[in-house]
Amino acid sequence: MSETAVPLPAPVFDPARVRSAVEERLTTFLDAKAQLAAAQGFPAEVTDVLQDLILGDGKRIRPVLCVAGWRAAGGCGDEGPVLRVAASLEMFHAFALVHDDVMDRSATRRGRPSAHEAIAARHVGRPDAARLGMDAAVLLGDLALAWSDELFHAARLGPDQLAAATAVLDGMRTELMYGQYLDLLATGRPSADVDAALRIARFKSAKYTVERPLQLGAVLAGADVGVRTALSAFGLPLGEAFQLRDDLLGAFGDPSETGKPAAEDLREGKHTALLARALRRATGTERDLLTGYSQGVPPGPAEVVRIRAVLEGTGARAEVEVMIEERRRQALRVLEEAGLPPAAGAILRAAASTLIGPAR
Amino acid sequence: MSETAVPLPAPVFDPARVRSAVEERLTTFLDAKAQLAAAQGFPAEVTDVLQDLILGDGKRIRPVLCVAGWRAAGGCGDEGPVLRVAASLEMFHAFALVHDDVMDRSATRRGRPSAHEAIAARHVGRPDAARLGMDAAVLLGDLALAWSDELFHAARLGPDQLAAATAVLDGMRTELMYGQYLDLLATGRPSADVDAALRIARFKSAKYTVERPLQLGAVLAGADVGVRTALSAFGLPLGEAFQLRDDLLGAFGDPSETGKPAAEDLREGKHTALLARALRRATGTERDLLTGYSQGVPPGPAEVVRIRAVLEGTGARAEVEVMIEERRRQALRVLEEAGLPPAAGAILRAAASTLIGPAR
Repeated sequence: MSETAVPLPAPVFDPARVRSAVEERLTTFLDAKAQLAAAQGFPAEVTDVLQDLILGDGKRIRPVLCVAGWRAAGGCGDEGPVLRVAASLEMFHAFALVHDDVMDRSATRRGRPSAHEAIAARHVGRPDAARLGMDAAVLLGDLALAWSDELFHAARLGPDQLAAATAVLDGMRTELMYGQYLDLLATGRPSADVDAALRIARFKSAKYTVERPLQLGAVLAGADVGVRTALSAFGLPLGEAFQLRDDLLGAFGDPSETGKPAAEDLREGKHTALLARALRRATGTERDLLTGYSQGVPPGPAEVVRIRAVLEGTGARAEVEVMIEERRRQALRVLEEAGLPPAAGAILRAAASTLIGPAR
Repeated sequence: MSETAVPLPAPVFDPARVRSAVEERLTTFLDAKAQLAAAQGFPAEVTDVLQDLILGDGKRIRPVLCVAGWRAAGGCGDEGPVLRVAASLEMFHAFALVHDDVMDRSATRRGRPSAHEAIAARHVGRPDAARLGMDAAVLLGDLALAWSDELFHAARLGPDQLAAATAVLDGMRTELMYGQYLDLLATGRPSADVDAALRIARFKSAKYTVERPLQLGAVLAGADVGVRTALSAFGLPLGEAFQLRDDLLGAFGDPSETGKPAAEDLREGKHTALLARALRRATGTERDLLTGYSQGVPPGPAEVVRIRAVLEGTGARAEVEVMIEERRRQALRVLEEAGLPPAAGAILRAAASTLIGPAR
């Protein structure tokens, strides 16, 4: 009905606007799925639990970075397709969280019961409720993965965009799964090998959370190889810094802020760079304390306090802060040297602050 | 380099040729993934286990039906795209099997150790080998699901074909997951409700295994609504018959033929039409026997023999045979009445025999 066909310039990049636009799309999508389930007589708990998980909270890091990559590569005009692709990334992330919590037997996520706990709670009268929750959460994650595809297809990309975008997505998914696989293999047997820990972080987090979302947005804007290379050179160190920050939060963070149980990485025996650094300098007694959980007995609250003291006392915490700042500087240097469009610098600098906090 | 540009007619539909063409594509794909993993230093067990599962054995039912649907709808000329899509269905099926075995704690598949058992066996020295196997198999299934997409994208469908095919695929995936979810909820608490059992069978098997693969092939040939409706009318009863046959094999089959442990459905307390039929006529003692596993104690070999006797004695086995024949006739009637192309009849009749055996 509109008579004005003049294309509007893309509005200023505003992460809050991206978040609300993505949440709106996810809300609409999940409402439609809930209605479909009701019409078919499928159990409502599937979409109920996903709605609670996805719409309840979440920083929408990957959608924001996807749109940032699109803008940084000169994307303008109709934001519809890039927002749909961004929403599909958030649905994919829901898949990753649900299965991650199953594998880690993690009781909470974003401050609420994790998906398997939420499902088990709905069947509390059944003797097999706990197992049912775990098994059903595997299916719930599978559904979120399939639905992330459905959201992606809804973007109706043209053939060239589609080929470029699926190449990025295919790479992202494979990297994440292998990163998680490396993480699984290393869990319960952390070592002083910092490089091994960084390698896990690179695949399960840096590429998945930062590099690939930026690239995905960029290829939707038709970015050339130069821009994509610059975004990788910026995104990888920033992504590593993000995971290192997450390691610190995992060890020292307050559950009311992280949404996860206190010191869960330590309880699970995750091979993080933080722990690897500490193991390099730990005494025999300290080493036993840091790796005690690998004997099958997770540390209690009092031991967690002592472990934290070792992470401080060995200098590991301070060293990881230094590693974060090194990576921040490396990422920001790329913005000065890579010859990205001037507007891109401001967008990506803001993204860096959001991910790892302001520079010290 | 070829100077002959005359399009060749599609060769006669030959399921064995479809199987080998699909296996060739899957072999090439998995070899490339194994090489990529080696180059990146990722653990080889991921592709090793998938190769054993996918290339070792398998009837390739869904790929064969996909190509059958394409031919039945008049598909001719270049078979490349439909074979790639068919291969992606088989990779998707590998995902479904891996996660199904995790959820059922099933030790074997296709006569070999299931994926989680195969992974656990590779880490037999670790105290957490069993849990690692289960968790890693969740990831392995995730990877197979993501890789099924990669194979699908490799078909490089045009925009119209792509939109039609993704609509079918999206539906198939959602139906399967909900079917599996219904199955999970009913496991350990079977009842005399035959309709409920058939409903589970429809979603987790009839639509997924028969209707949707046929439709997927058909839309790749540009099938109109009439052809698609006829394929549904043919595929749904045939798919139900396939699941009923599978229920009989699950209860009475020889593990050397089924590739699964003896009477696994009974041990797991699956709510099948066979069991529902038996519960309708069972005496109190028989009923206790049939549902004893829901008390948490799976039946031993001697009890399995007694349970089988009850399934015979109540007439449930014979009734399910009748249900299969009713559905076969219903499917074949569609072929006579639906006005499909003449060649389609022969193809689909052959598919029916392959799925549920020759008519009695």
